[in-house]
Amino acid sequence: MSWVDEIKWTEDGLVPVIAQLDNGKVVMFAWMNRESLQLTLEKGEAVYWSRSRNKLWHKGEESGHVQKVLSIKSDCDKDVVLLTIEQKGGIACHTGREGCFFHELQQQQWVVTEPVIKDPQLIYKK
Amino acid sequence: MSWVDEIKWTEDGLVPVIAQLDNGKVVMFAWMNRESLQLTLEKGEAVYWSRSRNKLWHKGEESGHVQKVLSIKSDCDKDVVLLTIEQKGGIACHTGREGCFFHELQQQQWVVTEPVIKDPQLIYKK
Repeated sequence: MSWVDEIKWTEDGLVPVIAQLDNGKVVMFAWMNRESLQLTLEKGEAVYWSRSRNKLWHKGEESGHVQKVLSIKSDCDKDVVLLTIEQKGGIACHTGREGCFFHELQQQQWVVTEPVIKDPQLIYKK
Repeated sequence: MSWVDEIKWTEDGLVPVIAQLDNGKVVMFAWMNRESLQLTLEKGEAVYWSRSRNKLWHKGEESGHVQKVLSIKSDCDKDVVLLTIEQKGGIACHTGREGCFFHELQQQQWVVTEPVIKDPQLIYKK
């Protein structure tokens, strides 16, 4: 059985994926299908499955903000994947922030706790 | 609109949740529904929704390995939750390991990279 077959894929053929930096910061959460997980290993760069666009999503293909993969881990049940990555450009979020988890719950309000590093309009030129 | 209503719940009324330690280590991935997320804030301890048992799951209720919540974050789309936790007993995984992500892909094989700290039979006495 190949390592890809050992993953417990959802009915839709997907697996949830967490990406964190080497320093532990969790920068994003996305999904992969079999092909994207295999491509991630082959390229050494994160390739997700975009559920909204229904296609492979080589992270950074448009922005240049590629994620170099340092390690690929899976959990006890092999139904979740955890990537350690080096984030090119230092921006993982489409809002132009370092990571996506920039809302923090404080006194029952979601407060924005991270600055925009680069205007998304300058990142995505299309 | 309350902070809970701002979360983009799945059709099943759930949201994926990542739990990491203060040092950045990601120890588990699970799901919450509205009630469990509200209880998590009220108790200051992680309460998940068990999809397999179809009920609220106050993490540590049986093992004592409660997760004290240090922060609750959400992502750009508010469809994922990230908890920073203090793990009581130092064991988050039901296999008796510190965390669940103990399989690492090496030469196309999933290799176990973390030791069992405590025999699960001693953790779950029922």
